Amino acid sequence: MLFNPRAIIVVGVSPEKAWGGTHFLETLREYGYPGAVYPVNPKYEGQEIHGYKVFGSISSLPDDPPIDLGIIAVPSKVTPQIVEELGQKGVIFAHIFSSGYSELGEEGKQLEQELLELAKKNRIRILGPNCMGIFNAKSRISIAHKIPLVSGSVAFISQSGGNVYRHIFSAFIKGYHFSSMVSLGNQIDLDVIDFLNYFRADPDTKVISMYVENIKRSGNEFVQLLKETTKIKPVIIWKGGKLEAGHSAVMSHTGGLAGDITLWKAMARQTGAILVNNFKELIEMIQTCLLCKLPKNLGTAIITGGGGPAVELTDECEAFGLNVPRITEKAQKEISEFIPAVNSNLSNPLEFGANGGHKNMVKVIKILDKEPHISSIIMTNSPEWYSRENMNMEEVVKSLANTISPDSHKNLISLHNLFGVRKETIDVINEFYFKMRENRIIIYDSAEAAAKCIHRLWSYGNYLKNLGIKND
Amino acid sequence: MLFNPRAIIVVGVSPEKAWGGTHFLETLREYGYPGAVYPVNPKYEGQEIHGYKVFGSISSLPDDPPIDLGIIAVPSKVTPQIVEELGQKGVIFAHIFSSGYSELGEEGKQLEQELLELAKKNRIRILGPNCMGIFNAKSRISIAHKIPLVSGSVAFISQSGGNVYRHIFSAFIKGYHFSSMVSLGNQIDLDVIDFLNYFRADPDTKVISMYVENIKRSGNEFVQLLKETTKIKPVIIWKGGKLEAGHSAVMSHTGGLAGDITLWKAMARQTGAILVNNFKELIEMIQTCLLCKLPKNLGTAIITGGGGPAVELTDECEAFGLNVPRITEKAQKEISEFIPAVNSNLSNPLEFGANGGHKNMVKVIKILDKEPHISSIIMTNSPEWYSRENMNMEEVVKSLANTISPDSHKNLISLHNLFGVRKETIDVINEFYFKMRENRIIIYDSAEAAAKCIHRLWSYGNYLKNLGIKND
Repeated sequence: MLFNPRAIIVVGVSPEKAWGGTHFLETLREYGYPGAVYPVNPKYEGQEIHGYKVFGSISSLPDDPPIDLGIIAVPSKVTPQIVEELGQKGVIFAHIFSSGYSELGEEGKQLEQELLELAKKNRIRILGPNCMGIFNAKSRISIAHKIPLVSGSVAFISQSGGNVYRHIFSAFIKGYHFSSMVSLGNQIDLDVIDFLNYFRADPDTKVISMYVENIKRSGNEFVQLLKETTKIKPVIIWKGGKLEAGHSAVMSHTGGLAGDITLWKAMARQTGAILVNNFKELIEMIQTCLLCKLPKNLGTAIITGGGGPAVELTDECEAFGLNVPRITEKAQKEISEFIPAVNSNLSNPLEFGANGGHKNMVKVIKILDKEPHISSIIMTNSPEWYSRENMNMEEVVKSLANTISPDSHKNLISLHNLFGVRKETIDVINEFYFKMRENRIIIYDSAEAAAKCIHRLWSYGNYLKNLGIKND
Repeated sequence: MLFNPRAIIVVGVSPEKAWGGTHFLETLREYGYPGAVYPVNPKYEGQEIHGYKVFGSISSLPDDPPIDLGIIAVPSKVTPQIVEELGQKGVIFAHIFSSGYSELGEEGKQLEQELLELAKKNRIRILGPNCMGIFNAKSRISIAHKIPLVSGSVAFISQSGGNVYRHIFSAFIKGYHFSSMVSLGNQIDLDVIDFLNYFRADPDTKVISMYVENIKRSGNEFVQLLKETTKIKPVIIWKGGKLEAGHSAVMSHTGGLAGDITLWKAMARQTGAILVNNFKELIEMIQTCLLCKLPKNLGTAIITGGGGPAVELTDECEAFGLNVPRITEKAQKEISEFIPAVNSNLSNPLEFGANGGHKNMVKVIKILDKEPHISSIIMTNSPEWYSRENMNMEEVVKSLANTISPDSHKNLISLHNLFGVRKETIDVINEFYFKMRENRIIIYDSAEAAAKCIHRLWSYGNYLKNLGIKND
């Protein structure tokens, strides 16, 4: 009910400020939230803000439809009173946007304690404080403005509102969408375990991702829940605050202690959770879970145009956990029937120099698709080149996608980097990215990114296999 | 004279093929190389290719102006004879584009031996074989097509023609230019040591960069020359073929043995050379050498908008060698005069939440510029946001650049990533990148990239300091 509230109170709105409660009114209006919305501020009673009529008090609000969510954006000292009023009104969830609690020290901690006691007494659950709240496209509730609201299959639990923002924009660019997102803040009541449990059972969620700085409840509870969840769907964890200075940043951010990263690594191994190091790795790993099959092995074939790039891709694949074994004599022989040996390397990495070209690449991938000790086929593509050669992008991508037979366990992976973009080529590049995703071919910006993701996905598959869960 | 030949012979041209010798004719024509150009192929004698008249033999060519360079693009078996003819004609350098030598095995090795003996006998120096040759904007000689030919201050020595290509395009996007580039190939005669020596003394070259897989001469000679060179200008080395599979890729690429990466690391420490791991790190490190001052220490201040991003940047800076120490009480006090403590963190990482904004950021950086234990100030910028707020990009960037006083030793560093680009914002982003570079503010796509580069530049400065060379 937190993610699809029938009516919402927003406490702390002002026609003079765009931020705070007013920001939430603006997004509810922008995305056409269909339920009732009640801004509350006695100072502006009767006025309209973003088309919503402002009320003077919580107690005076209508009781039908039932109000499931109250958003609180008032100075922290006033929040206990508001929580009590919301509870007495029968509101189920209070999202406290306000900050100024344990992240500031002892006095703030006492305020949190007070809030929690009032919440229990008045049977209302608290999200936050110090958080951005919820995002759910189906319910037309968003945290960020001016970005199309599309339902997807990724859940994101975040102990940072800033990271929720970045994630909305980056996912839009990367082409995936969310079932729900939640910004946790100081987690005094509802916490990462509650939401992990929710998304475990949520049929709309296929991949669970999270940014987490600390766990408020016992680690054992978290570990147990992770184990139950990873059996059903992948869980990707980005742990923030890994080192000492990061710890102190966490302390001032959400008032928690960060915990040692080595513990988190051990926990990931034990539970099948996929640990990533930063935001870029998070979004790449989510894409990987959405687009790739669980790799059967770490064997990787590399196809590229030049010797130098071939050496680099091999270096990077091996440095980040993949193997680049020789392909079979049989496959080499098949390839040598149409690619001459001079200026080429047919064993792996495969590099063709001037003997490359799209048609040869397609033929080679079809041959590699039959190699049993290879699970990943990495190629470099240049949408700019396809465009210069006047090739039809739809046909190019289809021909690449069709190289992998439907019953193959292999992932076809493309490398293309955006060190910068020239305006002349952006349409071509975006068209290529879009069509590749449509055809379930993942694009990474480097062999390092590809190798890290594929290795992590292989580890997850291996974890499931050891549990006797079918690895397909 | 290799980089500014008075006349060029191209042996192995054909009106029917765009690649090989014909490719070189095309680029010489495209960029308006001012010297004489003599294509040679008896089969097409008298015809014109790209506007150059084809000659039937080398011996029949005019002797004035003197011919300094011969480009050879014929089957490998024919190359010894061509080298002999060029030598007898008095040509000084032969660039052998052809492949099919030691990279293919024993027979090819013998061919290389034969070439070398003929070259010595006929007093001609060989570049290659199996290489793309030279690039020099002043001489109007390029390896790649259709990219503006601009002179710059970066030299690139590469044992991979593919990496020369990528470098030309990437540098263009990143906004730096080359004094010269050379593709080495199998280095049977002219090798990395010869070119390092040349660029050491070259007044046009401020930064030397190289992609190298193996050293043909004694390691001691290379070490000695590196030591002499790094005293004068930075030398950035990307070593290709680091691991086992990479080794075998190198073997088939340029016919050499790769050498252990741990040896290269030791050598870098001993000589002050800057070692990087891949192409992305190479171009980032070159930009760093061009735009940044040698950092006096590893202290880093981080300024960002949200708590989550602040934690991430701190984690990444510390993971890759920088420190994020608390700033002085004095500085914190100065900042607290205009930024409230609630929702902000003023000790480092500095995060201001809704209290941020451009003007406050400028004031904060000016205060940080006086902190003695900080050498790097890392901020996150959003050109898209400046644009939405209708701010003038010229003024924004100028105000950022002016935060650092002229006699300060600090580097101001901006983080902005291109996970993808929307057409609507590309002009804004490119304008921002261009103006930032103009004002010597470096932009990295991640804190990891920034931390690696700044740490490496600090190490280089430290090396010079230990030698008693002024570190400024």
